[in-house]
Amino acid sequence: MRIAVMGTGTVGRTIAARLDELGHDVTVGTRDVVAARARRSPDGSGGDFGRWTEEHPAIGLATFPEAAELGEVVVNATSGEVSLAVLAAAGTSRLAGKVLLDISNPLDFSAGFPPTLFVADIDSLGEQIQRAFPEAKVVKTLNTLAAELMVRPGQLDEGDHTVFMSGNDADAKALVRDLLVSMGHTDVIDLGDISTSRGTEMFLPLWLRLMSFLGTGLFNVKVVRERPSTD
Amino acid sequence: MRIAVMGTGTVGRTIAARLDELGHDVTVGTRDVVAARARRSPDGSGGDFGRWTEEHPAIGLATFPEAAELGEVVVNATSGEVSLAVLAAAGTSRLAGKVLLDISNPLDFSAGFPPTLFVADIDSLGEQIQRAFPEAKVVKTLNTLAAELMVRPGQLDEGDHTVFMSGNDADAKALVRDLLVSMGHTDVIDLGDISTSRGTEMFLPLWLRLMSFLGTGLFNVKVVRERPSTD
Repeated sequence: MRIAVMGTGTVGRTIAARLDELGHDVTVGTRDVVAARARRSPDGSGGDFGRWTEEHPAIGLATFPEAAELGEVVVNATSGEVSLAVLAAAGTSRLAGKVLLDISNPLDFSAGFPPTLFVADIDSLGEQIQRAFPEAKVVKTLNTLAAELMVRPGQLDEGDHTVFMSGNDADAKALVRDLLVSMGHTDVIDLGDISTSRGTEMFLPLWLRLMSFLGTGLFNVKVVRERPSTD
Repeated sequence: MRIAVMGTGTVGRTIAARLDELGHDVTVGTRDVVAARARRSPDGSGGDFGRWTEEHPAIGLATFPEAAELGEVVVNATSGEVSLAVLAAAGTSRLAGKVLLDISNPLDFSAGFPPTLFVADIDSLGEQIQRAFPEAKVVKTLNTLAAELMVRPGQLDEGDHTVFMSGNDADAKALVRDLLVSMGHTDVIDLGDISTSRGTEMFLPLWLRLMSFLGTGLFNVKVVRERPSTD
């Protein structure tokens, strides 16, 4: 599948590399391709996007509108505070009719750690994106996980933990479910329409405190429930 | 231990009965003892508090201030919207120096189901209660669970799931941890000070949507993390 991944941060790079590995035709979208290729940091950290592109020659790099044009599926892997602007830059018409897999969280770091949420409770970033791009088929998912666990859940407890999904379009959710399963997810819960994004976005305050408690983001929750009778 | 349980709803009755069963000296606090004893409902539902008291003769029934006076530990099992008023009725001086085990959630049902939260993100009901009763040792816990699982976690997956705890006082949390373990909890995570209540209270929107998805409140989450090395 031709997949556009918006965002060059940790989530964007991790998702793009994994989708490439799984055989998809991946293009990463960024604001300024020349500047992104030139980005270097001596410690090899997230700022070293230039080297990352060299290490992933099969992954394309394009502007937001070019990437959105190419992708049959568009992944929003940008930080929540710029998501609406990035998708607007990609272009409403280029998102129309497509699955928009939204990983963003509405985190506000302006008062330090832990961040607060800039939208919550009676609305969500997932809903804001769906309202802004009504012809896109927004599916919110993976936003409750560290990047490495999004794409390789099997590295923790053999993948026996849960990922959630919210969206209005059943076919779009079926496609996203297949993508999640292809990455190793074994327990995908479809919470319902895009308004259920409120639930997973508001899980972040607990996630952030668990990260502080555990000293790592490499954890997840398993929804423990009665097992179906095997009779 | 002498324990006062504020609230005659499902949570209050379930906690009171379990603490009684575990050998504690339990008094339920209510606004009007005579009215509470007279409460009947033909279907045996939560409204049938009168019959419940007859079935639990060892559990005392008293006004909020009387119960708070008797309890060495006070459990807030009232609904969030009345918690501050109930605790004020119990009396600031009667809560001073005591462990106040707070189970309440700031749920606002005024716009129907699912409820929204009347405090979130930059504050929490746990913090509001701690600020209102600064000499009480507030420990927020159990608010992420259905009543039956609060007191008998072993009925689901042999108890292999997680309960959280938030509070400023280490000794109070140690006492609450012992109470939780005595009820069957095997994975108690101390998230930190009372501000971490924001995390567990904001988990409710996801909990409520999971309840809709699963068709039952008898589920929980297990925090799945790397196991400590056994070397």
